[in-house]
Amino acid sequence: MEYDRPLFYHVMEYAAAAERDTVDMVSGNPDWGPPDALREGLIEYASGDPSQFQYPPSAGLSQLRQEIADRRAVETERVIVTNGAGEANHLSMASGLEHHSGDEVLLADPVYPYYAGRTRLLGATPTFVPADRTGQLDPDRVREAASEETALIVVNSPNNPTGAVYDRDTMTSLVAIAEANDALVVSDEVYDHFDYTGTFESALSIDSEHRIVTNSFSKSLGITGLRVGYAILPERLVESIRTRHMLTNVAGSRPAQHAVYRALRDTDRSYYERNRERLRDRIETFTEALDAIGAEYTRPDGGFYVLARFDGVPGTLENTKQLIDEAGVAGMPGEAFGQARSDWFRFALVTQRVDDAATRLEAFISG
Amino acid sequence: MEYDRPLFYHVMEYAAAAERDTVDMVSGNPDWGPPDALREGLIEYASGDPSQFQYPPSAGLSQLRQEIADRRAVETERVIVTNGAGEANHLSMASGLEHHSGDEVLLADPVYPYYAGRTRLLGATPTFVPADRTGQLDPDRVREAASEETALIVVNSPNNPTGAVYDRDTMTSLVAIAEANDALVVSDEVYDHFDYTGTFESALSIDSEHRIVTNSFSKSLGITGLRVGYAILPERLVESIRTRHMLTNVAGSRPAQHAVYRALRDTDRSYYERNRERLRDRIETFTEALDAIGAEYTRPDGGFYVLARFDGVPGTLENTKQLIDEAGVAGMPGEAFGQARSDWFRFALVTQRVDDAATRLEAFISG
Repeated sequence: MEYDRPLFYHVMEYAAAAERDTVDMVSGNPDWGPPDALREGLIEYASGDPSQFQYPPSAGLSQLRQEIADRRAVETERVIVTNGAGEANHLSMASGLEHHSGDEVLLADPVYPYYAGRTRLLGATPTFVPADRTGQLDPDRVREAASEETALIVVNSPNNPTGAVYDRDTMTSLVAIAEANDALVVSDEVYDHFDYTGTFESALSIDSEHRIVTNSFSKSLGITGLRVGYAILPERLVESIRTRHMLTNVAGSRPAQHAVYRALRDTDRSYYERNRERLRDRIETFTEALDAIGAEYTRPDGGFYVLARFDGVPGTLENTKQLIDEAGVAGMPGEAFGQARSDWFRFALVTQRVDDAATRLEAFISG
Repeated sequence: MEYDRPLFYHVMEYAAAAERDTVDMVSGNPDWGPPDALREGLIEYASGDPSQFQYPPSAGLSQLRQEIADRRAVETERVIVTNGAGEANHLSMASGLEHHSGDEVLLADPVYPYYAGRTRLLGATPTFVPADRTGQLDPDRVREAASEETALIVVNSPNNPTGAVYDRDTMTSLVAIAEANDALVVSDEVYDHFDYTGTFESALSIDSEHRIVTNSFSKSLGITGLRVGYAILPERLVESIRTRHMLTNVAGSRPAQHAVYRALRDTDRSYYERNRERLRDRIETFTEALDAIGAEYTRPDGGFYVLARFDGVPGTLENTKQLIDEAGVAGMPGEAFGQARSDWFRFALVTQRVDDAATRLEAFISG
């Protein structure tokens, strides 16, 4: 069996080893830092009595699980706290494949590469449904691709890498397609706090036993390294996924869960608004430079990423390295995200140096 | 597919809901607390810059991984830091089943229940090899049970629940049996700091591509809730297990890894010695009471647990509840650990109230 080991690590290592100064736009690590309450939560945790250092409940620390249930307006029993959205997606896909007869997984192309790697790890077969030019996934194309062989439809909105935000009609259709084919929608919504259009619709709002919503605090609280995520489960899969979680990880890490609980409780809306505003500004700056270059690009409706295409410089791994060495800008090659955008680059706008990157790209491409 | 959901949670919930005061001897949560350096590590982490809150390397925070490699005298590449020994065992078993032709897993009986549940989760078949009366696993019986169908031999030393410590001869034989049958030994050594005999031998000291050593800091640093463990991998499985880890969890939780690194660096031997001494005393106290009752028991050579059998009160789940309700002592029913000791109880000596428990058991059994 061969897995996809994501290219991220390879590109990050190359960029880190580069001799010249490089603006890092490779991976989606927020640069703005967590809210103060998160740091305070860790410090508070550190002085707990010995029992506080022992196993949290397998499904997650009670207050955190309750807080998530309240915010999402679901029963606490439907929430499982996981080691990031990574584990939430892993568990959802594994249990979905177990509980449905087919072994096909429908994925959008471009695709977040972990979905494809995980599909193969789990012994299933990916089928790619091309997104349109704006990055939207047309439900009619998904409907055509779906069959009794389909066990899972794994989607991501706001989307990485395209920046597309799926609206209520799209989500409703996707869940209906899953129901019609006895399949499961896994809706990964980790960028839900970064919707610039107001049209984002969580799959949670579509009442169905055929959808799982996964999420994490990695992006919304700027803490990809704490590994706190969650899934909201249909009743029929609660027992299976809880057992699988227990036999995979036993439980998640308690200091991280405690800190996230404190951050949720004590962080007001301005933190989230400020980060959205910051990203809007960066998107503006970066796309203006792309306009100046005459590059093709997709302006994101949500999330952190801009896909761009430069004439004569297709987004191969080789050209990604050239961009690092000669322009001092590190992006990701489009080929990491499937076939559809293999000649594009993805740039993550999670650096204060978006300005620099824009200037450097202009000089490199026009020069 | 049906999994074993460990009974621990059920018994813990029952004990917590009990009306009377109960001495909790259910699960292996150390009561003595982590070393100061661990708490300091968390506080130090909390004031890091935003980049410190982002993904650690998937295989583990560099300093921690290096520290483990140094302590175990292996190349850093062979170490993977995991979400506790739970994930380390999960990854090892999954990759072992993938890379060997059989689908049989040899387990000792009594068995740590997660091994059996995980075997079934992974679609494999457990075969139980009875331990002897002292809890030792006779390599001759393992050799008889092994065949080309065998993919894995999963062992635990010092053992939970028997307290047996496997010596060099046993470990050497187990690895040789794995080699002869193209199988893999997964040696879970989480209680390695609690060897009271001096005869413990890590499978690491037997040079072979047919063994994985798993471990964690849950017990040695008193932090079951931080979820920091590791595996030391044979070269042939490094790539497979690292990829599987990445596609399951992406990475482990960084504050926990940082705190463990600080604790390893700055905690001296006296911390570990004190905890061993404490447990020796508790074993003495508890087994004296069992002698007074006339109960049969195994005196542990390592670890935290005492298995005991009372005439007329077999270790069923029902009697476990009776012990909670009428004696105020919560143990685990032997049936949770397989067939071999289904009429025994397991008591975890991780409470300052071992004295109380002993007195209560004497009064209940003799009364």
